Amino acid sequence: MAEEVKLFGALESPFSCRVVIALKMKGVQYEYIEEDLPHKSPLLLKYNPVHKKIPVLLHNGKPICESLVILEYIDETWKGTPIFPQDPSDRATARFWAQFLEQKCLPTLWKACCWKGEGQEKAKEEAYELMKMLDNELEGKRFFGGDTIGLVDIVGNFIGFWYGIVQEITGVELWTKEKFPRLCEWIDEFVKCTIVKENLPPREKLLAYFRTRLRGAAASK
Amino acid sequence: MAEEVKLFGALESPFSCRVVIALKMKGVQYEYIEEDLPHKSPLLLKYNPVHKKIPVLLHNGKPICESLVILEYIDETWKGTPIFPQDPSDRATARFWAQFLEQKCLPTLWKACCWKGEGQEKAKEEAYELMKMLDNELEGKRFFGGDTIGLVDIVGNFIGFWYGIVQEITGVELWTKEKFPRLCEWIDEFVKCTIVKENLPPREKLLAYFRTRLRGAAASK
Repeated sequence: MAEEVKLFGALESPFSCRVVIALKMKGVQYEYIEEDLPHKSPLLLKYNPVHKKIPVLLHNGKPICESLVILEYIDETWKGTPIFPQDPSDRATARFWAQFLEQKCLPTLWKACCWKGEGQEKAKEEAYELMKMLDNELEGKRFFGGDTIGLVDIVGNFIGFWYGIVQEITGVELWTKEKFPRLCEWIDEFVKCTIVKENLPPREKLLAYFRTRLRGAAASK
Repeated sequence: MAEEVKLFGALESPFSCRVVIALKMKGVQYEYIEEDLPHKSPLLLKYNPVHKKIPVLLHNGKPICESLVILEYIDETWKGTPIFPQDPSDRATARFWAQFLEQKCLPTLWKACCWKGEGQEKAKEEAYELMKMLDNELEGKRFFGGDTIGLVDIVGNFIGFWYGIVQEITGVELWTKEKFPRLCEWIDEFVKCTIVKENLPPREKLLAYFRTRLRGAAASK
Protein backbone atom coordinates (compact mmCIF):
# COMPACT_ATOMS: atom_id res chain seq x y z
CA MET A 1 0.00 0.00 0.00
CA ALA A 2 1.35 3.40 -0.97
CA GLU A 3 1.67 5.65 2.07
CA GLU A 4 -0.55 8.67 2.39
CA VAL A 5 1.11 11.91 3.47
CA LYS A 6 -0.81 15.16 3.59
CA LEU A 7 0.22 18.51 4.99
CA PHE A 8 -2.33 21.11 6.09
CA GLY A 9 -0.47 24.40 6.00
CA ALA A 10 -0.61 28.09 5.17
CA LEU A 11 1.67 30.00 2.85
CA GLU A 12 2.32 32.84 5.31
CA SER A 13 3.26 30.56 8.21
CA PRO A 14 6.89 29.89 9.17
CA PHE A 15 5.64 26.85 11.15
CA SER A 16 4.15 25.35 8.03
CA CYS A 17 7.32 26.17 6.08
CA ARG A 18 9.44 24.28 8.65
CA VAL A 19 7.52 21.09 7.85
CA VAL A 20 7.76 21.66 4.09
CA ILE A 21 11.55 22.01 4.32
CA ALA A 22 11.83 18.87 6.48
CA LEU A 23 9.68 16.79 4.12
CA LYS A 24 11.74 17.99 1.13
CA MET A 25 14.97 17.11 2.96
CA LYS A 26 13.65 13.58 3.36
CA GLY A 27 12.38 13.40 -0.22
CA VAL A 28 8.85 12.53 0.98
CA GLN A 29 6.07 12.87 -1.58
CA TYR A 30 3.03 14.56 -0.06
CA GLU A 31 -0.15 16.37 -0.85
CA TYR A 32 -0.22 19.97 0.32
CA ILE A 33 -3.54 21.47 1.48
CA GLU A 34 -3.52 25.24 1.83
CA GLU A 35 -5.75 26.40 4.71
CA ASP A 36 -7.51 29.74 4.67
CA LEU A 37 -6.75 30.68 8.28
CA PRO A 38 -9.73 32.95 8.92
CA HIS A 39 -11.96 30.10 7.64
CA LYS A 40 -10.35 26.88 8.82
CA SER A 41 -11.56 23.70 7.17
CA PRO A 42 -13.62 21.11 9.08
CA LEU A 43 -10.80 18.62 8.38
CA LEU A 44 -8.19 20.81 10.10
CA LEU A 45 -10.46 21.22 13.14
CA LYS A 46 -11.02 17.48 13.20
CA TYR A 47 -7.32 16.66 13.05
CA ASN A 48 -6.16 19.33 15.52
CA PRO A 49 -9.12 19.82 17.90
CA VAL A 50 -6.88 21.02 20.75
CA HIS A 51 -5.04 23.91 19.12
CA LYS A 52 -7.05 24.23 15.87
CA LYS A 53 -3.85 25.31 14.13
CA ILE A 54 -1.72 24.49 11.14
CA PRO A 55 0.57 22.71 10.42
CA VAL A 56 -0.94 19.26 10.68
CA LEU A 57 0.81 16.33 9.09
CA LEU A 58 -1.45 13.42 8.22
CA HIS A 59 0.43 10.15 7.78
CA ASN A 60 -1.65 7.13 6.80
CA GLY A 61 -4.66 8.67 8.52
CA LYS A 62 -2.87 9.66 11.74
CA PRO A 63 -2.62 13.39 12.46
CA ILE A 64 0.56 14.86 13.96
CA CYS A 65 0.27 18.43 15.28
CA GLU A 66 2.68 21.18 16.39
CA SER A 67 5.65 21.89 14.13
CA LEU A 68 8.40 20.86 16.59
CA VAL A 69 6.62 17.56 17.26
CA ILE A 70 6.19 17.06 13.51
CA LEU A 71 9.92 17.64 12.87
CA GLU A 72 10.80 14.95 15.44
CA TYR A 73 8.27 12.60 13.81
CA ILE A 74 9.60 13.20 10.29
CA ASP A 75 13.18 12.55 11.37
CA GLU A 76 12.19 9.33 13.15
CA THR A 77 9.96 8.08 10.35
CA TRP A 78 11.85 8.72 7.11
CA LYS A 79 15.46 8.17 6.14
CA GLY A 80 17.23 10.71 3.97
CA THR A 81 19.08 13.82 5.09
CA PRO A 82 19.04 13.85 8.90
CA ILE A 83 17.34 16.81 10.58
CA PHE A 84 18.56 16.05 14.12
CA PRO A 85 22.20 15.30 15.02
CA GLN A 86 23.00 11.66 15.78
CA ASP A 87 24.77 12.09 19.14
CA PRO A 88 22.37 12.43 22.15
CA SER A 89 24.33 15.36 23.57
CA ASP A 90 24.25 17.21 20.22
CA ARG A 91 20.55 16.37 19.91
CA ALA A 92 19.98 17.93 23.34
CA THR A 93 21.82 21.07 22.22
CA ALA A 94 19.70 21.26 19.06
CA ARG A 95 16.46 20.78 21.02
CA PHE A 96 17.59 23.42 23.53
CA TRP A 97 18.10 26.08 20.84
CA ALA A 98 14.93 25.08 18.98
CA GLN A 99 12.99 25.64 22.21
CA PHE A 100 14.85 28.93 22.78
CA LEU A 101 13.83 30.18 19.33
CA GLU A 102 10.25 29.07 19.78
CA GLN A 103 9.59 30.20 23.33
CA LYS A 104 11.90 33.20 23.77
CA CYS A 105 12.72 34.68 20.36
CA LEU A 106 9.37 34.34 18.59
CA PRO A 107 7.23 36.28 21.09
CA THR A 108 9.96 38.84 21.78
CA LEU A 109 10.60 39.68 18.12
CA TRP A 110 6.88 40.24 17.58
CA LYS A 111 6.63 42.63 20.53
CA ALA A 112 9.86 44.40 19.55
CA CYS A 113 8.61 45.03 16.01
CA CYS A 114 4.86 45.44 16.39
CA TRP A 115 4.07 46.74 19.88
CA LYS A 116 4.23 50.40 20.73
CA GLY A 117 5.49 52.39 23.72
CA GLU A 118 7.23 51.06 26.80
CA GLY A 119 6.46 47.39 26.07
CA GLN A 120 8.15 47.74 22.70
CA GLU A 121 11.26 49.38 24.12
CA LYS A 122 11.63 46.62 26.70
CA ALA A 123 11.14 43.96 24.04
CA LYS A 124 13.77 45.62 21.82
CA GLU A 125 16.30 45.39 24.64
CA GLU A 126 15.37 41.78 25.27
CA ALA A 127 15.55 41.00 21.54
CA TYR A 128 19.08 42.45 21.50
CA GLU A 129 20.15 40.05 24.27
CA LEU A 130 18.52 37.06 22.54
CA MET A 131 20.09 37.85 19.17
CA LYS A 132 23.47 38.26 20.87
CA MET A 133 23.11 34.74 22.28
CA LEU A 134 22.29 33.35 18.84
CA ASP A 135 25.22 35.27 17.35
CA ASN A 136 27.57 33.77 19.96
CA GLU A 137 26.20 30.28 19.35
CA LEU A 138 27.07 30.63 15.66
CA GLU A 139 30.76 31.28 16.36
CA GLY A 140 32.89 29.20 14.03
CA LYS A 141 29.85 27.60 12.37
CA ARG A 142 28.10 28.12 9.04
CA PHE A 143 24.80 26.77 10.41
CA PHE A 144 23.65 26.06 13.97
CA GLY A 145 24.27 22.37 13.48
CA GLY A 146 27.58 22.80 11.64
CA ASP A 147 28.15 22.66 7.87
CA THR A 148 24.63 21.80 6.77
CA ILE A 149 21.17 22.92 7.86
CA GLY A 150 19.41 21.03 10.64
CA LEU A 151 16.73 21.40 13.30
CA VAL A 152 17.76 24.79 14.72
CA ASP A 153 18.17 26.43 11.32
CA ILE A 154 14.77 25.14 10.20
CA VAL A 155 13.03 26.24 13.40
CA GLY A 156 14.79 29.64 13.14
CA ASN A 157 13.50 30.22 9.58
CA PHE A 158 11.31 33.06 10.85
CA ILE A 159 14.24 35.22 11.88
CA GLY A 160 15.83 36.22 8.61
CA PHE A 161 12.98 35.82 6.15
CA TRP A 162 9.81 36.60 8.12
CA TYR A 163 11.30 39.21 10.44
CA GLY A 164 13.28 40.70 7.57
CA ILE A 165 9.90 41.53 6.04
CA VAL A 166 8.29 42.63 9.32
CA GLN A 167 11.25 44.95 10.01
CA GLU A 168 11.03 46.38 6.49
CA ILE A 169 7.36 47.26 7.07
CA THR A 170 7.64 48.55 10.63
CA GLY A 171 10.99 50.30 10.22
CA VAL A 172 12.29 48.63 13.38
CA GLU A 173 15.89 47.49 12.95
CA LEU A 174 16.85 44.68 15.32
CA TRP A 175 20.08 43.50 13.77
CA THR A 176 22.85 44.85 11.58
CA LYS A 177 26.04 43.29 10.24
CA GLU A 178 28.00 45.48 12.67
CA LYS A 179 26.09 44.30 15.74
CA PHE A 180 25.61 40.64 14.88
CA PRO A 181 27.91 39.65 12.02
CA ARG A 182 27.53 35.90 12.48
CA LEU A 183 23.75 36.03 12.73
CA CYS A 184 23.52 38.15 9.57
CA GLU A 185 25.89 35.79 7.78
CA TRP A 186 23.71 32.84 8.84
CA ILE A 187 20.55 34.60 7.61
CA ASP A 188 22.18 34.99 4.19
CA GLU A 189 23.51 31.43 4.10
CA PHE A 190 20.17 29.95 5.18
CA VAL A 191 18.09 31.54 2.43
CA LYS A 192 20.79 30.66 -0.13
CA CYS A 193 20.38 26.89 0.55
CA THR A 194 18.66 25.35 -2.46
CA ILE A 195 16.11 23.45 -0.38
CA VAL A 196 15.22 26.57 1.62
CA LYS A 197 15.20 28.97 -1.35
CA GLU A 198 12.88 26.68 -3.30
CA ASN A 199 10.39 26.34 -0.46
CA LEU A 200 10.06 29.77 1.09
CA PRO A 201 6.84 31.60 0.22
CA PRO A 202 7.17 34.34 -2.43
CA ARG A 203 8.55 37.45 -0.71
CA GLU A 204 6.09 39.82 -2.37
CA LYS A 205 3.10 37.80 -1.18
CA LEU A 206 4.40 37.73 2.38
CA LEU A 207 5.10 41.45 2.24
CA ALA A 208 1.49 42.08 1.15
CA TYR A 209 0.16 39.73 3.84
CA PHE A 210 2.06 41.44 6.66
CA ARG A 211 1.25 44.93 5.35
CA THR A 212 -2.45 44.09 5.76
CA ARG A 213 -1.99 42.28 9.05
CA LEU A 214 0.11 45.00 10.64
CA ARG A 215 -2.26 47.70 9.48
CA GLY A 216 -4.98 45.75 11.26
CA ALA A 217 -2.83 45.50 14.37
CA ALA A 218 -2.13 49.25 14.37
CA ALA A 219 -5.79 50.09 13.74
CA SER A 220 -6.90 47.96 16.69
CA LYS A 221 -4.61 49.76 19.14
CA MET B 1 36.14 5.52 33.69
CA ALA B 2 33.05 5.74 35.91
CA GLU B 3 30.54 8.16 34.46
CA GLU B 4 29.82 11.41 36.25
CA VAL B 5 26.17 12.39 36.61
CA LYS B 6 25.16 15.45 38.62
CA LEU B 7 21.78 17.11 38.91
CA PHE B 8 21.42 20.74 39.92
CA GLY B 9 17.88 21.03 41.24
CA ALA B 10 15.60 22.57 43.85
CA LEU B 11 13.25 20.75 46.17
CA GLU B 12 10.27 22.97 45.43
CA SER B 13 10.53 22.66 41.64
CA PRO B 14 8.33 20.26 39.64
CA PHE B 15 10.83 20.63 36.77
CA SER B 16 13.62 19.33 38.94
CA CYS B 17 11.36 16.52 40.22
CA ARG B 18 10.67 15.39 36.63
CA VAL B 19 14.37 14.74 36.13
CA VAL B 20 14.72 12.94 39.47
CA ILE B 21 11.86 10.56 38.56
CA ALA B 22 13.36 9.90 35.11
CA LEU B 23 16.83 9.16 36.53
CA LYS B 24 15.32 6.82 39.12
CA MET B 25 13.31 5.04 36.39
CA LYS B 26 16.58 4.39 34.57
CA GLY B 27 18.41 3.38 37.74
CA VAL B 28 21.11 6.02 37.14
CA GLN B 29 23.37 6.83 40.10
CA TYR B 30 23.85 10.58 40.41
CA GLU B 31 24.93 13.33 42.75
CA TYR B 32 22.16 15.78 43.63
CA ILE B 33 23.07 19.42 44.22
CA GLU B 34 20.34 21.50 45.83
CA GLU B 35 20.34 25.09 44.57
CA ASP B 36 19.20 27.97 46.71
CA LEU B 37 17.16 29.75 44.01
CA PRO B 38 17.43 33.30 45.36
CA HIS B 39 21.22 32.79 45.47
CA LYS B 40 22.13 30.65 42.49
CA SER B 41 25.55 29.08 42.54
CA PRO B 42 28.29 30.19 40.12
CA LEU B 43 28.32 26.62 38.78
CA LEU B 44 24.63 26.75 37.84
CA LEU B 45 25.14 30.09 36.08
CA LYS B 46 28.14 28.63 34.27
CA TYR B 47 26.24 25.56 33.08
CA ASN B 48 23.02 27.33 32.12
CA PRO B 49 24.10 30.85 31.09
CA VAL B 50 21.09 31.35 28.81
CA HIS B 51 18.21 30.67 31.20
CA LYS B 52 20.10 30.61 34.53
CA LYS B 53 17.60 28.00 35.76
CA ILE B 54 17.45 24.59 37.31
CA PRO B 55 17.31 21.74 36.49
CA VAL B 56 20.69 21.19 34.86
CA LEU B 57 21.95 17.66 34.27
CA LEU B 58 25.71 17.36 34.05
CA HIS B 59 26.84 14.19 32.31
CA ASN B 60 30.59 13.64 32.07
CA GLY B 61 31.13 17.39 32.16
CA LYS B 62 28.47 18.27 29.56
CA PRO B 63 25.51 20.32 30.80
CA ILE B 64 21.99 19.60 29.54
CA CYS B 65 19.37 22.25 30.35
CA GLU B 66 15.56 22.50 30.25
CA SER B 67 13.59 19.63 31.77
CA LEU B 68 11.88 18.44 28.56
CA VAL B 69 15.23 18.37 26.75
CA ILE B 70 16.77 16.52 29.70
CA LEU B 71 14.00 13.88 29.65
CA GLU B 72 14.69 13.21 25.94
CA TYR B 73 18.42 12.98 26.69
CA ILE B 74 17.94 10.57 29.59
CA ASP B 75 15.73 8.28 27.52
CA GLU B 76 18.24 8.26 24.65
CA THR B 77 21.27 7.76 26.86
CA TRP B 78 20.31 5.12 29.43
CA LYS B 79 18.53 1.84 29.08
CA GLY B 80 16.06 0.74 31.74
CA THR B 81 12.36 1.59 31.97
CA PRO B 82 11.47 3.58 28.84
CA ILE B 83 10.14 7.11 29.34
CA PHE B 84 9.01 7.65 25.75
CA PRO B 85 6.87 5.19 23.77
CA GLN B 86 8.71 3.21 21.09
CA ASP B 87 6.42 3.87 18.11
CA PRO B 88 7.07 7.25 16.36
CA SER B 89 3.38 8.06 16.21
CA ASP B 90 2.92 7.35 19.94
CA ARG B 91 6.08 9.37 20.64
CA ALA B 92 4.56 12.29 18.73
CA THR B 93 1.38 12.01 20.81
CA ALA B 94 3.41 11.99 24.04
CA ARG B 95 5.46 15.01 22.94
CA PHE B 96 2.27 16.81 21.93
CA TRP B 97 0.70 16.42 25.39
CA ALA B 98 3.96 17.20 27.17
CA GLN B 99 4.12 20.47 25.24
CA PHE B 100 0.43 21.12 26.00
CA LEU B 101 1.06 20.70 29.73
CA GLU B 102 4.13 22.89 29.64
CA GLN B 103 2.95 25.71 27.43
CA LYS B 104 -0.81 25.81 28.04
CA CYS B 105 -1.59 24.25 31.43
CA LEU B 106 1.33 25.54 33.50
CA PRO B 107 0.81 29.29 32.94
CA THR B 108 -2.99 28.99 33.01
CA LEU B 109 -3.13 27.12 36.33
CA TRP B 110 -0.90 29.73 37.92
CA LYS B 111 -3.10 32.60 36.76
CA ALA B 112 -6.29 30.72 37.71
CA CYS B 113 -5.03 30.14 41.26
CA CYS B 114 -2.89 33.16 42.03
CA TRP B 115 -4.07 36.12 39.99
CA LYS B 116 -6.94 38.31 41.10
CA GLY B 117 -9.88 39.92 39.33
CA GLU B 118 -10.88 39.60 35.71
CA GLY B 119 -7.63 37.93 34.63
CA GLN B 120 -8.22 35.21 37.21
CA GLU B 121 -11.80 34.57 36.11
CA LYS B 122 -10.72 34.25 32.48
CA ALA B 123 -7.90 31.89 33.47
CA LYS B 124 -10.30 29.75 35.52
CA GLU B 125 -12.51 29.30 32.46
CA GLU B 126 -9.50 28.46 30.35
CA ALA B 127 -8.21 26.03 32.99
CA TYR B 128 -11.59 24.28 32.92
CA GLU B 129 -11.27 23.72 29.16
CA LEU B 130 -7.69 22.49 29.45
CA MET B 131 -8.50 20.07 32.29
CA LYS B 132 -11.45 18.77 30.28
CA MET B 133 -9.08 17.99 27.40
CA LEU B 134 -6.75 16.11 29.75
CA ASP B 135 -9.70 14.26 31.26
CA ASN B 136 -10.85 13.19 27.77
CA GLU B 137 -7.35 12.09 26.83
CA LEU B 138 -7.31 9.78 29.86
CA GLU B 139 -10.40 7.87 28.73
CA GLY B 140 -9.82 4.14 29.12
CA LYS B 141 -6.26 4.65 30.38
CA ARG B 142 -4.67 4.47 33.80
CA PHE B 143 -1.82 6.78 32.79
CA PHE B 144 -1.39 9.04 29.76
CA GLY B 145 0.90 6.50 28.14
CA GLY B 146 -1.19 3.44 29.10
CA ASP B 147 -0.59 1.07 32.01
CA THR B 148 2.65 2.56 33.32
CA ILE B 149 3.92 6.10 33.80
CA GLY B 150 5.78 7.79 30.97
CA LEU B 151 6.68 11.21 29.58
CA VAL B 152 3.28 12.91 29.88
CA ASP B 153 2.67 11.72 33.44
CA ILE B 154 6.13 12.88 34.51
CA VAL B 155 5.76 16.28 32.83
CA GLY B 156 2.26 16.61 34.35
CA ASN B 157 3.57 15.99 37.90
CA PHE B 158 2.75 19.60 38.83
CA ILE B 159 -0.99 19.15 38.36
CA GLY B 160 -2.00 16.89 41.20
CA PHE B 161 0.79 17.43 43.70
CA TRP B 162 1.91 21.03 43.24
CA TYR B 163 -1.46 22.48 42.29
CA GLY B 164 -3.16 20.39 44.95
CA ILE B 165 -1.11 22.40 47.43
CA VAL B 166 -1.57 25.74 45.66
CA GLN B 167 -5.35 25.19 45.56
CA GLU B 168 -5.36 24.28 49.25
CA ILE B 169 -3.63 27.56 50.09
CA THR B 170 -5.56 29.83 47.73
CA GLY B 171 -8.95 28.17 48.17
CA VAL B 172 -9.41 28.02 44.39
CA GLU B 173 -10.94 24.71 43.30
CA LEU B 174 -10.18 23.82 39.69
CA TRP B 175 -11.16 20.19 39.61
CA THR B 176 -13.47 17.80 41.45
CA LYS B 177 -14.19 14.11 41.00
CA GLU B 178 -17.63 15.08 39.64
CA LYS B 179 -16.25 17.38 36.96
CA PHE B 180 -13.16 15.44 35.92
CA PRO B 181 -13.33 11.87 37.26
CA ARG B 182 -10.54 10.48 35.06
CA LEU B 183 -8.16 13.34 35.81
CA CYS B 184 -8.74 12.95 39.56
CA GLU B 185 -8.25 9.20 39.29
CA TRP B 186 -4.98 9.78 37.42
CA ILE B 187 -3.79 12.26 40.08
CA ASP B 188 -4.35 9.57 42.74
CA GLU B 189 -2.73 6.81 40.69
CA PHE B 190 0.30 8.94 39.84
CA VAL B 191 1.23 9.81 43.42
CA LYS B 192 0.65 6.19 44.45
CA CYS B 193 3.41 4.92 42.05
CA THR B 194 6.34 3.84 44.19
CA ILE B 195 8.91 5.72 42.10
CA VAL B 196 6.85 8.91 42.25
CA LYS B 197 5.90 8.63 45.91
CA GLU B 198 9.51 8.10 46.93
CA ASN B 199 10.75 11.12 44.99
CA LEU B 200 8.21 13.87 45.52
CA PRO B 201 9.29 16.60 47.94
CA PRO B 202 7.77 16.40 51.44
CA ARG B 203 4.25 17.87 51.27
CA GLU B 204 4.66 19.95 54.44
CA LYS B 205 7.80 21.62 53.13
CA LEU B 206 6.13 22.47 49.84
CA LEU B 207 3.09 23.81 51.68
CA ALA B 208 5.32 26.08 53.76
CA TYR B 209 7.24 27.19 50.66
CA PHE B 210 4.09 28.17 48.74
CA ARG B 211 2.51 29.84 51.78
CA THR B 212 5.48 32.20 51.91
CA ARG B 213 5.67 32.63 48.15
CA LEU B 214 1.97 33.34 47.71
CA ARG B 215 1.96 35.79 50.60
CA GLY B 216 4.76 37.61 48.79
CA ALA B 217 2.75 37.57 45.55
CA ALA B 218 -0.33 38.99 47.29
CA ALA B 219 1.74 41.64 49.08
CA SER B 220 3.30 42.83 45.82
CA LYS B 221 -0.07 43.44 44.14
